[in-house]
Amino acid sequence: MQMDRREAENYRADPDYARMLDAGDQLARFRRAFEIADPQLIYLDGNSLGRLPRETGGRMATAVTDEWGRGLIRGWNAGWYSASSRLGDKIGPLVGAGSGQVVVSDSTSVNLFKLVMAALALRPGRDRIVSDVLNFPSDLYILQGCVDLLGNRHSLHLVPSADGVTIDPSALLSAIDERTALVTLSHVTFKSGFLHDAAAVTERARQVGALVLWDLSHSVGVVPVDLDGWGADFAVGCTYKYLNGGPGAPAFLYVRRDLQDKARSPIWGWFGQRAPFAFDLGYEPAEGVARFLVGTPPVLSLVALDAALDLTLEAGLGPIRAKSVSLTSYLVYLFDTVLTPLGFRLGTPRDPARRGSHVSIRHPDGYRISQALIEEMQVLPDFREPDNIRLGLAPLYTSFSEVWEAVDRIRRVVVEERYRKYPQERSTVT
Amino acid sequence: MQMDRREAENYRADPDYARMLDAGDQLARFRRAFEIADPQLIYLDGNSLGRLPRETGGRMATAVTDEWGRGLIRGWNAGWYSASSRLGDKIGPLVGAGSGQVVVSDSTSVNLFKLVMAALALRPGRDRIVSDVLNFPSDLYILQGCVDLLGNRHSLHLVPSADGVTIDPSALLSAIDERTALVTLSHVTFKSGFLHDAAAVTERARQVGALVLWDLSHSVGVVPVDLDGWGADFAVGCTYKYLNGGPGAPAFLYVRRDLQDKARSPIWGWFGQRAPFAFDLGYEPAEGVARFLVGTPPVLSLVALDAALDLTLEAGLGPIRAKSVSLTSYLVYLFDTVLTPLGFRLGTPRDPARRGSHVSIRHPDGYRISQALIEEMQVLPDFREPDNIRLGLAPLYTSFSEVWEAVDRIRRVVVEERYRKYPQERSTVT
Repeated sequence: MQMDRREAENYRADPDYARMLDAGDQLARFRRAFEIADPQLIYLDGNSLGRLPRETGGRMATAVTDEWGRGLIRGWNAGWYSASSRLGDKIGPLVGAGSGQVVVSDSTSVNLFKLVMAALALRPGRDRIVSDVLNFPSDLYILQGCVDLLGNRHSLHLVPSADGVTIDPSALLSAIDERTALVTLSHVTFKSGFLHDAAAVTERARQVGALVLWDLSHSVGVVPVDLDGWGADFAVGCTYKYLNGGPGAPAFLYVRRDLQDKARSPIWGWFGQRAPFAFDLGYEPAEGVARFLVGTPPVLSLVALDAALDLTLEAGLGPIRAKSVSLTSYLVYLFDTVLTPLGFRLGTPRDPARRGSHVSIRHPDGYRISQALIEEMQVLPDFREPDNIRLGLAPLYTSFSEVWEAVDRIRRVVVEERYRKYPQERSTVT
Repeated sequence: MQMDRREAENYRADPDYARMLDAGDQLARFRRAFEIADPQLIYLDGNSLGRLPRETGGRMATAVTDEWGRGLIRGWNAGWYSASSRLGDKIGPLVGAGSGQVVVSDSTSVNLFKLVMAALALRPGRDRIVSDVLNFPSDLYILQGCVDLLGNRHSLHLVPSADGVTIDPSALLSAIDERTALVTLSHVTFKSGFLHDAAAVTERARQVGALVLWDLSHSVGVVPVDLDGWGADFAVGCTYKYLNGGPGAPAFLYVRRDLQDKARSPIWGWFGQRAPFAFDLGYEPAEGVARFLVGTPPVLSLVALDAALDLTLEAGLGPIRAKSVSLTSYLVYLFDTVLTPLGFRLGTPRDPARRGSHVSIRHPDGYRISQALIEEMQVLPDFREPDNIRLGLAPLYTSFSEVWEAVDRIRRVVVEERYRKYPQERSTVT
């Protein structure tokens, strides 16, 4: 990340400098592809829910009025039925997956359940699952549920974090051994934004015969992913964060081609059946990754996702990652310059090669500060216990000027003690 | 069903008589609440995908533009987060469930998986599951998958059907015994429209200590359901048929209140966690039926469902069922009068007390006839192997005149041999 260091030497903490960075931003035009209802509002939660693309409203209206209202049941033959596979193949290039390995289906957690159960069945002689303490809790809950369901024959080994921010790569690699059935991790961790060295982890797992399942929820669409290249076995991911698919947009799953005939979903549904409309009474799994589909997908939510994907595909992951690194690097620079003196600690790796596209800043009054930002400063971050304010930077619509302005507003909240009027008590749910 | 017999004595197979029935239809005004893009098109597949309510487009546009576009992440606190429970309680009165027992979540098949696994875990000493051969195949696939997942310790007993249309009640009741862990059936069967005596089946199961899980997909919104009154343990159901929730709208599930603390979902996701936003690393199930939630729900699809439910609630299930019985009874009368001489057989029970709201008519050339109806007669039924043309009658928008006209068009297809130009080969997927 030489460019990043070179830039950092020249960074300045003033709005003119931020505007200069915006002037050189090759992705700047993509901001106009999103609905920006309130230009004063600085939205830094695209890592939780991406903004609304301008195209989406029209595409949804067409789907509702024409496809459903006019086409009625004919919509299934006109495109709905193939949408899960078609959108999977559309996501494929964003995760380094050749066609026929990704489908859109269910929620991330349900997909994780299906793939974890499939993976453990493929390694019957092994009793260990490796993950880490920074993984998204719902992923850990799913794992705990799978262990329980299989009679507590497996142990779940969570690699610890010394600093709450990073995972020591050597500790992780040495935890993966011949007892390991499955390694499953969030590629980018939800709280600190730590980015695993997925190629190295996958390589280690392959060496010892363990399977690997990546949760790409916080990396897809903003960090390059190379599932085929890494040799990953399985992956899941969310589409409502950097992919801007809309609230609760359906998730995706990936099964490596040469595992597809061996892997079995634990949930035998008709969309994963070889010939669903023959209505045979006995289940036969479909060929390929489609066997991991279950029931009828939420079509209207798929339409919103379809529209949104075009923007990420058009921008390209190379430029998106370059801008993401520049955005987070500039934010870290401003953090050091402006916020460190105010009692903040950085909750995200300093090395841009080891972080995704959000930056966590920690403060003992973090919850109250985040409330003040939302209530009176027109900044929308999110808060994660116990003291993390997450600042998500979405390269398709976040500007460098917004980064500068957000840090300045955070500074004012602390310097002017605006946060003191807010209760310590937590009420936010997201 | 005395009214039905009295009506049948007076039925006449002419359009004036059908118009007279429409003139006396107390639900006629509800047709205007739906988008009828093409008044010449007779839509008889509301049992597969309900029509678009006129309100839905506007509600969707508001959700997209205001809730997502303007509200951004704040939408979660403004209503999205509670939508699964709120909509569950809205469905509650339609299925005879007091509040706090229904949630909207996932697909019907995923919900069935969760509840079947929960039920079998509650009856560890019993090894039998009772269903029937008329159950929806995806339900049977789910059951087969659960049996496989639990090590083939359970046997799946499918009560046969002598005529492919009905299930002998005494054969079903006698199949339920002290070995039975779970009885799970479609309240109304998908192909023949046979309506089980749910109260009697549930009562029998309770007598012998078996649990009961009803799939309400083909009855909810059109046949009265009384889960609390029957003493049912579990239920699932689909919302895109008679509830008009839109293509692939999320499903619902019911867990009887006094089972909620004992029953456990096999899929431990964060939306079913006691305090999802505490992000604790260990899973603790939520209180109540919410423990059967898993991941983030597809919000935009929930909005469409929310809008649609108002119509069914406003019309009321009493008037809906009364009209449904009248519609199917008139269709059966026309069938006897007009279609029997043309080689059709009835694929649905004659007793209105034993059928739901669709009527299957069977013909050796059924597939080709259905193709001719779709391609050149402006009638949309659906086809189910091997010879069933399903005619779904949705009391909120199907008129008696449409029933008459549809039968007349079917007659013309056969009399004029219009179906002969269509191939025998199947291509339809829905």
